[in-house]
This record gives sequence, C-alpha cells and structure tokens, in this order.
Amino acid sequence: MDQADINSIDTIFNPRTVAVIGASDVYEKWGFQVFSAAHESSAGTARRVYPVNTGASEVHGEKCYGSVLEIPGQVDLVLITIPAPLVPKVLDECGRKGVRGAVIITGDFAESGPEGAARQAEMLATARRYGIRIVGPNIMGHISTASGLITTPFIHDIVKGRIGFASQSGNIGVQVLQYGYNDNIGFSKFVGTGNEADLTLEDFVEYFAQDKDTDVIALYIEGLKNGRRFIDLARQITPRKPIVVIKAGRSEAGSRAARSHSSALAGSDAVYDAAFKQTGVIRTGTVLDLIYTCSALCRQPLPQGNRIGIIVIGGGIGVLAADECLRLGLEVPPLSPETIRRIDEVLPQFWSHGNPVDIVAESSATNECILALLDDPNIDAVMCVSTPGLRQILPKRINHVPPATRDATVARLNRTIDTAIADLDRVINRMDEVKKPVIFCKTNPVEEKLNPRVFARLNEKGFTVFRTPEHGAGVLARLLWYSRYLRQRQSQRYDAQS
Amino acid sequence: MDQADINSIDTIFNPRTVAVIGASDVYEKWGFQVFSAAHESSAGTARRVYPVNTGASEVHGEKCYGSVLEIPGQVDLVLITIPAPLVPKVLDECGRKGVRGAVIITGDFAESGPEGAARQAEMLATARRYGIRIVGPNIMGHISTASGLITTPFIHDIVKGRIGFASQSGNIGVQVLQYGYNDNIGFSKFVGTGNEADLTLEDFVEYFAQDKDTDVIALYIEGLKNGRRFIDLARQITPRKPIVVIKAGRSEAGSRAARSHSSALAGSDAVYDAAFKQTGVIRTGTVLDLIYTCSALCRQPLPQGNRIGIIVIGGGIGVLAADECLRLGLEVPPLSPETIRRIDEVLPQFWSHGNPVDIVAESSATNECILALLDDPNIDAVMCVSTPGLRQILPKRINHVPPATRDATVARLNRTIDTAIADLDRVINRMDEVKKPVIFCKTNPVEEKLNPRVFARLNEKGFTVFRTPEHGAGVLARLLWYSRYLRQRQSQRYDAQS
Repeated sequence: MDQADINSIDTIFNPRTVAVIGASDVYEKWGFQVFSAAHESSAGTARRVYPVNTGASEVHGEKCYGSVLEIPGQVDLVLITIPAPLVPKVLDECGRKGVRGAVIITGDFAESGPEGAARQAEMLATARRYGIRIVGPNIMGHISTASGLITTPFIHDIVKGRIGFASQSGNIGVQVLQYGYNDNIGFSKFVGTGNEADLTLEDFVEYFAQDKDTDVIALYIEGLKNGRRFIDLARQITPRKPIVVIKAGRSEAGSRAARSHSSALAGSDAVYDAAFKQTGVIRTGTVLDLIYTCSALCRQPLPQGNRIGIIVIGGGIGVLAADECLRLGLEVPPLSPETIRRIDEVLPQFWSHGNPVDIVAESSATNECILALLDDPNIDAVMCVSTPGLRQILPKRINHVPPATRDATVARLNRTIDTAIADLDRVINRMDEVKKPVIFCKTNPVEEKLNPRVFARLNEKGFTVFRTPEHGAGVLARLLWYSRYLRQRQSQRYDAQS
Repeated sequence: MDQADINSIDTIFNPRTVAVIGASDVYEKWGFQVFSAAHESSAGTARRVYPVNTGASEVHGEKCYGSVLEIPGQVDLVLITIPAPLVPKVLDECGRKGVRGAVIITGDFAESGPEGAARQAEMLATARRYGIRIVGPNIMGHISTASGLITTPFIHDIVKGRIGFASQSGNIGVQVLQYGYNDNIGFSKFVGTGNEADLTLEDFVEYFAQDKDTDVIALYIEGLKNGRRFIDLARQITPRKPIVVIKAGRSEAGSRAARSHSSALAGSDAVYDAAFKQTGVIRTGTVLDLIYTCSALCRQPLPQGNRIGIIVIGGGIGVLAADECLRLGLEVPPLSPETIRRIDEVLPQFWSHGNPVDIVAESSATNECILALLDDPNIDAVMCVSTPGLRQILPKRINHVPPATRDATVARLNRTIDTAIADLDRVINRMDEVKKPVIFCKTNPVEEKLNPRVFARLNEKGFTVFRTPEHGAGVLARLLWYSRYLRQRQSQRYDAQS
C-alpha cells in the first residue's frame, strides 16, 4: 500500500462528515441501529452525521436528505444499509458527490450466489471509477475509539485501548468487543471486512502496522485472499508488533460453513498453521483466549523461560492451575530456599512450602509472595490466582457486626485494601524491573464485586484479571511461544550478519 | 453404609439445633463468617443456631454460651472454628452433650505435618468414643438447600436444585457454587470433605445415591482413601444417577500440590482415568465444564448419536462451533431436503442452506429452525448458539425512536418476545417427545441483559444457557459418551442373561 491508501483508510476511521444511507426511525431496521450508533458516538466531536432516506423528511428529529447529493458540503464517508439491489446506483451518486469511503453493511452480495456476485462486481466497478474505497459488503460496521466513531450497531460500549482488530465475521467482531468491554480490555480500532470486495484483511493488517494508536493486532480469519502478501507482512510486522489470530475452519464442516458465510476459500488449515508458526503469528482458539493474549501483550514483559511460580488463595485451585500449566508444556518448579525463607515471614507456618504457593486465605500476604517469586532466579513468570487483598467481604454481612465496632471494622478492612493497593504498585514496578510477567486470574466469578478497589487499580494499570487459571496458563504459554520466536529470529539475524 | 450412617449424615444436613463454637463479632474471624452464614440461612426455619465462645457474653446481639454444655436442650450439630489445639477438648464436651455431628472448619491437622496428624488422631478417637460423626477437618462448611442450611461462609448465594456436590477442596467448592449461582444452576447439597478424618468422599457418594433431593452427583477429587469402594459404588450408581467429576493432579506438580493441600495420596492419574471409564463416571476438566455437564444431565435427554445440528445467529460463530464439534469427535452432517424445505419457509432465501444453519440475524425464526432440526432423522442433538427472539435491544437506544411511535415500537418488540417464548415451549415439548437434547449457548457475554425474558423462561424450564459454543460442544460430547456407556452396560446385561 502507498501513502494514498493509508490516507484513504485514515479517512474511513476518522471522517469529518458521515452520511447514513437508509437511516430510519424504525427500531428493527439496520438503518435505525447504524444511524443511532454513529450519531450517538459522534456527539461531542466535530463530526457531522447526516441521515439519508428517500422516504423520510426527518430521522431522529433531524432533517433527512433524499440523496447524498443534497447534503451541503463535503461528505467523507457513507454508511450503507439499504437493500443490495439499490446499492450500485447509490454508490454512483456518492462518486459524483466526491465521497472517499463507503462502509457497506448490506448483505446479499457475493456470499449469496451468482446474482449477488454480479451485483458486487458492478458496485466495485462504480467505486473504482470514482476512487471510493469500500469496506465490506456484508459487515457490521467499524469503530475508532481515538476519533470516537462507532458504526457497529450491536455493542453495549467499548473501552479505548491499544488493540487494533480486523474480523472476517461481524458476529465474532461484536462478540470480541463485548467480551473486551466486560473485562475492561481496550481497542484502538475495529473493522469487519466481510466479503472484501475492495479492502481486505491484509490491507488492514498493513494499516494497523503503521497505526500509532495500535500496539497489538488482533485478527479473526476465515480465509485470506492473498496468503503470500499476509505472510510477507506478518514476517515484517511481528518483530515490532504482535499479531494474534483466531483462524476458523480447522475442520471440514467449519471450512464448508466459512465458504457459505463469507465466500472465503478457507484452504488447508495445516498450510495456515505452518505460515503462522514461521512468521511469529500467535494463534488462539477462542474469543477469550484472543483478547486475553492481546491484553497481556499490551502490558506484560515476555517470559524468558517456561518456569511458572503459582500463588493461590487455596489448595484445590492451585492443583488445577499446576495441572493446566504442565499440560501446556510449562513447568512449575520447586522454589529456591531464599524464596521459601521470604514467604515463611508472611504466611502461617503451615503453608505449603512449595510451588504452587498456597497462601491459605492470607490475602494480605499476596503481594509479598509475588515479590519473592519475581526475585527467584528459578522462576520466569508469576501466575497469581486471586487478587491481592481479597477478603471476600459480603456487604450484607457487615450489618452483623455490632454497631459499636462497625465503623472501626470498616476502617480496618479499608486499611487492608489500602495496603494491598500500595503494595501492588511495588509489585508492578518490580515486574517491569526484572522483566517477568505477572498474570492475575480470578478464583471467583464475582471477584470484582468482592474486591472492587483492587480490581479498579489493576485495570487502571493495564492489567486484565483473567476469568480462570486455565485462561492465565494459556496466555503464558502463548507469550512464551512468541518470546522464543523472537529470540530465534534475532539469532538468525546475527547469523546472517556474521 | 447402614441406615444409621445415612441417618447421621441426614442429621448433619438437616439439624434442628446447631452450635457454632468460636462464634465471634470480629468480622475477619472464621467464627464471625460461619456463625453469620448459619444464622442468616436458618432465619425462617425452625432451626436454632447458638453462638459458643468462652470470651463473649453476646455475639450478634444474642446470648453467647461459654460451652456447648451450657446450651439448653439437645444440640444436633456443632460447627467448629476455634484453633486446632483446642478442638479435642471441645469435642469431648460435645460428646458429653450428646452432639451427633461436627463440621470442623479449622485447619492445621493432618495436612500440616506430624503434629497436626497426631492432633487429628486424638480428635477422631474422642469422636469415635461418643459416636460423633465428623466432616473435615480443614474445610469450608456444608450446605443443604432443602433444609435451608448454609455453613459455607464465602458464597454470595445459592440456587436450589438437583445437583449433590462433594469436594475435596473448599475453594473449588466455593468456586463451583458461585459459578453455579451466576448461571442459575441449582444444588441440593454441598459438602467439603477436607482431610476426611471420619466421613470420606465415598461416604457422601453413597449418601447422594439414595438422596431423594439429588439427581446428579458432582465431585471434585484429589485422591480417594478407598478407591476399590469408589469403583464398586460408581458401577452401581451410574446406571441410575450420573456421576460427574473433576479429578485434579493430572500432572506431577499437581499431585505434589494435592499432597500438601489435603494430604491426599493422588495415585496414578491413569489408574483413576481407567476406573472412571469402566464405571461410567463422566470426567471433566474445568469448573464450568463440571457444572454445565451436571445441569444438562438434570434436564436433557441423552443423545443417541454424534450428529449435531447447529443453529447460529451469524456465520463466524457457526464456523467456530462446527470446528469445536469436529475436534471433539462429533459430526455436523448435511441437512435432509425436508429440513432445508422447512427452513426455507422461515429464513430469507440467501440463508446458508447447510449445517450450521446461519439464521442471518432473523432471531424470530430460531424456534422453527430448532423444530426442523429436531425432526430431521439425520440429527441426534441440536446446539443453538443465541437465544430465540434475541434482538439485541439496547435500552438506551429506544429513546431515539420518535415519541409518536415509541409505545408502538415497544409493544411490537414485546410481541416478538411473547411469540419467542410461546414457541420455546413448543420446542421444549418436542425435545422431550423425540428425546434429543437441545443445548443453548450465548453469542454474547451480556445476552441475558439483551434478552431477559427468554433467559428467564429458559432458566425456569431448567435450561442453562452456556457461555460459549465451545462449552456447549463439550457438554454434548460428554452426554454422548455417557449415553454410549449406558447402552453398552445394557447390552452386556442382556448378554449375561441370555
């Protein structure tokens, strides 16, 4: 891609004026949802969002235009939700208006058979004639948190962050963003690529590679139009910016479904897998694994070896966490005598004296145990199952404390949390100094309700608390794989130079 | 076990009077949390819960006794939270008082070394002398939803249901119950077995087998005291009541952690695995897989084959769901012409015409698609990814509908949901008639907020909506394994008879 292509994509993510063609007041229509999303998200920005619909004079109480041609001044981007047969004509009007980009939500193009394919070809020819760049068709919109633009209708909300995400499925796109929102994981940009009539997933990979708002590139892939180009790009990009993918269609039934979904030629999964391995692309299997890996890559140092120190609030969870680490090729080695000595100072004498470190519910000792493990030369990464300071405070239960001592109790509990937060900052500093990752996992699905201030601090500092130790172990295994890939690349370069 | 043993365990789960030894007004003490839990949960029942503490005259504003001997009348059960060295003497008083059961929360017994082991032996001798049955020590309490007793301190709440759960880890116990609560999965009883000084996991398995409140037995196992007895029990029980387990300590590091946690002799994992396979015990790997499998066993018919029909709200999610089914040995076969004809009637013509059935966001057609798949002779089970009637209604967005049509819009959306609910009842009836399971999975972490009435109806009818299609596929694979085990057992019986 040249600078003009980059600029075109920039305009699509950061338009000054947007027209929604098919904007509607009927709740169930895509034109309602897309206009609402674009309009809401643009409130408070300098961006204008115009409704266009031949059948309405007003939409959401604003003046509605019969055609994009009637809108005063320049229109940078159009969002199209009208039925497929009407799209080519409307695109011609957009061309005459000087529109630079079109996000085509509408389906029933190449994915639905020969008739749709012909329609897609006609539309593309029109776009090419005018130099309009197309995203889609058959997608669920796009997002830039930097410019505050959301055209994806079906999301609750999104957190600003450093992950750039391109998806060949709109539904997976929404799922990833919603899971991200739920766990406070932030995105810089999102785009659904759909049928890729014009702009492809590869184009967005190249765009994200140079995007200053993006530190990690996340992809959902069903099939690539230009595998060779992807491989070349990935080889160049992964030493500077990690690329994390879900590649669907591992199975024959999956490939079949992918073909009918996005008309993608899924190709042999083994070929994709080998290409990912050779170019340092991190492959994950599920939506949570994708976003958790991206989140860790945004914040954590990479582990330099496979020896994991585990801290757990109670025994059983430690057993399962160790099992999962071992299954993934990680090690859970014995602790050094110095580490045991340091932990002896903060835990009751009957603690496990081994790895996993069972803190026997002494949550206030969590941070000291992490520090001891970070300093252990036999440990490459720390997995902490339960958040520091967790006391499982049930709000209703505070009422059982006699009134005479209730205030003092609350003050004492708050001091414990204050200490946990102060110590947490020491842990994070130490983690950055010794360059070993510290992964936090929940013991409990409601842990953020039980320990809200520590959760908030962890989120503030860029940490995601993963749902289970299994998720945390998976993230560590993928970080380690990537770390080893980078070292191998580095040594190959030295070899080539010498 | 004989009837007297069953009666003793019955008393532990359904005592008329309980004393909490170590009850306290200091929030951070176990005696505070356990007394609060027992006291709160017994409100509105005929049960009396007495605080006992030598150092207090009142606890939670109630008269506190210096010894269990001072309590007027019979005491059925004691909950003990005082330090380990004090336990043997207190247990002697309990014996003199005629107490029948003791739930010993306190740790620092056999799990902490020789001194603790000696203490545990002394305590057990005292209990045996008086005929007191012991649960624990080193546990996090027990629960009976039927009798409304909760002695487990660190849970938010629990749903009444048909799963009986015994756990060799208190933390895993709490985790399972909290995940269950979050997904509205109900339990009949819970018990942590801890060090198993007296009552063992095997005892509770035998108890649950005859318990009228329990339809499915869930277990977290680190190591069995009497493997032979477990095998004999499992062989007898699984044809009538499913047993679902997590067995920890798959790895060497895990086994080591298990030993230091509950002093369990984990033994070779391969031996356990073979025993489970031979006796029809369903093995799962994670807490969510455990409760989801139990939930499905409580409500769903067992699949008679491995051919899965998948319904999805959008393409990409279907591809991943099909991939996961295939990975687990399930099939996603083509649909019969009659099924395609029926689905043609309810979906736009450009639907996928294959399996997975991509409903292209036409949520109102979900139920008709499930019915068509249930009637397809080539399909053994249905997995529906997204709840029927899901329209992803964002409450804040309704305000963008012009005031003149807002009421009519809300009424129309509600009618769609009314229809979805009525059709859902037809689906459930048909499912029971044709005896094929229907598994629902979320597409979205906030789907219950977007579609609350349909979620509520599904929960009412005993269905859990699983978090991801991956979870759903795992449940189907385990149900199929169990179904095949049962058929094989059945045919062996016929062979033996002929």
